[in-house]
Amino acid sequence: MKRILILNTGGTFSSRPSDAGLTPSISGPEIVDIAGRISDDIELSAEDFCSLDSANILPEDWISLAERIGSAIDEFDGFVIIHGTDTMSYTSSMLSFMLRGIQVPVVLTGSQMPLGMPMSDALMNLHTAVWMAASGTPGVYVAFGHKIMLGCRTSKVRTVSFNAFESINYPYAGEVNAFGLQVYIDRDRYTGGLELCTDYSERIAVLKLFPGMNPSIFNNLHAHGVEGVYIEGFGLGGVPFLRKDFTAEIRKASELGMPILVGSQCRYEGSDLSVYETGRRILECGGIPVYDMTEEAVVTKLMWCLGQTKDIDDIRRLFATDLAGEISLKQ
Amino acid sequence: MKRILILNTGGTFSSRPSDAGLTPSISGPEIVDIAGRISDDIELSAEDFCSLDSANILPEDWISLAERIGSAIDEFDGFVIIHGTDTMSYTSSMLSFMLRGIQVPVVLTGSQMPLGMPMSDALMNLHTAVWMAASGTPGVYVAFGHKIMLGCRTSKVRTVSFNAFESINYPYAGEVNAFGLQVYIDRDRYTGGLELCTDYSERIAVLKLFPGMNPSIFNNLHAHGVEGVYIEGFGLGGVPFLRKDFTAEIRKASELGMPILVGSQCRYEGSDLSVYETGRRILECGGIPVYDMTEEAVVTKLMWCLGQTKDIDDIRRLFATDLAGEISLKQ
Repeated sequence: MKRILILNTGGTFSSRPSDAGLTPSISGPEIVDIAGRISDDIELSAEDFCSLDSANILPEDWISLAERIGSAIDEFDGFVIIHGTDTMSYTSSMLSFMLRGIQVPVVLTGSQMPLGMPMSDALMNLHTAVWMAASGTPGVYVAFGHKIMLGCRTSKVRTVSFNAFESINYPYAGEVNAFGLQVYIDRDRYTGGLELCTDYSERIAVLKLFPGMNPSIFNNLHAHGVEGVYIEGFGLGGVPFLRKDFTAEIRKASELGMPILVGSQCRYEGSDLSVYETGRRILECGGIPVYDMTEEAVVTKLMWCLGQTKDIDDIRRLFATDLAGEISLKQ
Repeated sequence: MKRILILNTGGTFSSRPSDAGLTPSISGPEIVDIAGRISDDIELSAEDFCSLDSANILPEDWISLAERIGSAIDEFDGFVIIHGTDTMSYTSSMLSFMLRGIQVPVVLTGSQMPLGMPMSDALMNLHTAVWMAASGTPGVYVAFGHKIMLGCRTSKVRTVSFNAFESINYPYAGEVNAFGLQVYIDRDRYTGGLELCTDYSERIAVLKLFPGMNPSIFNNLHAHGVEGVYIEGFGLGGVPFLRKDFTAEIRKASELGMPILVGSQCRYEGSDLSVYETGRRILECGGIPVYDMTEEAVVTKLMWCLGQTKDIDDIRRLFATDLAGEISLKQ
């Protein structure tokens, strides 16, 4: 018998219409009832963790989720987290780091349409997540739209369609087809036993570049206590260096010990700072490459790293390390 | 005879390898030579406009391009702009606004591999762009990877593949197939004769939200002379309103007359602030919806609008108006 714990955080999945628009209101026990009997070998239980539109999920909720899972790990064979789609990829990325090495599946899911509405995707997603949670495959995943994705590789790329999530620059970990749940991933590489580590810092800044952006924005970062910056640059990871010089700011900040990560605002195929002059200048100035990581993984890994260390060289090393499958490092 | 002017701004297309990495160095006249005879009915000429990696293209270059095209409009039947891919979508979006109503084609193109390298996409993209420029179809376009896209709907979504650009939330305007260039778009709607208008303001800020982001960032925007903000929110356009309250900041800023635009960091299918409680609160607080616009179109339209007016109600009206095909307004 596989014992699966459902942690319900709210989101569209458990929403009902109200005068204010859709708001979360279905409880965990109701979800277990609606799920029905999935298999004789699976025993579901549920807890109401919170009841939030995931736009309102904060880093402190990530900690509580990680700690609840850590405390229950000997009682359950897998976990399902019901979560709003809006920030699900941030949560699944951060849990990948906070729950590093976990030996059971932790599967986030949600839906584009509330449970109980005709044609809703909620029940199918729930069943997919429960099957994955019962599969014994260790790690943190998102189950959505018949696909299983590594938690630290997902992004919400569509705001309306049922296939809202994609696995970015990484194969699907599994899928549901006519033969049921197929699991493709070999996850032994990341399984060393749970190292629960929930320290983090939210003192970071994300700079999405646009032409004409003023590099003087860097002047304020130190004053405001920012401890690390992610620059979403152009193309393979370029930033302006003529007339408006971002590379000089990267050098100054790096020399002061502030890690400056540089990636791409393009959705697919990642960044490579070694190809163009602009990228090479960034590396010379101390910028830290993020290769093919998603923005959600960069943001949460930076927060998590800053919880472990404030040393720029340690952070550089952590970003040159594949912690949970989040990065494809160049050979 | 169709007279086409090629304006060469640099980018990968006209780059050659150097010790510093790939840097722009092929001239406009060389490009005409390499293009060869495309058709007996097309006469090509070229000008070197600048020689920049497009990470270094700035709003002042957009003005110069728009003015050069405006000054040459009676001498040419179409224009091709050779441009780096990194910021091409920002340039094509802004030119859509600056050259509103233009009666001839303006076609941006570039490549993922330099001209003259084996297997390069440069020559094919150039030929596609020249054919489109000679087609008589008015408007601003991007030609790339056998596709023609409306300039204010493109984004670079892939950093390496030849199909680097997509038309976001909008059909392709044309494509190249076995029968040559096919043009699908009916562009008469936006053709009223050129209204060259190059005023803009670059005093804007882009806030890409992440969970845990501190809303106090708004305190500094007025002090730093920011005149308008684009919030890239979650999902259909949500922002946090519990514990960390961004809606209160949107209200305060809007009441002070600063336009706050709200959209989605999801790549596809746009935003809709009317569905969830979080979206409705944004509208009540004065946030301005951007529906299905790309980030590049939002950023450049905001800059352009702030060049025409600083009045928040005027800007609200301009963002509720389809100026060049950039937005699908709700019925």
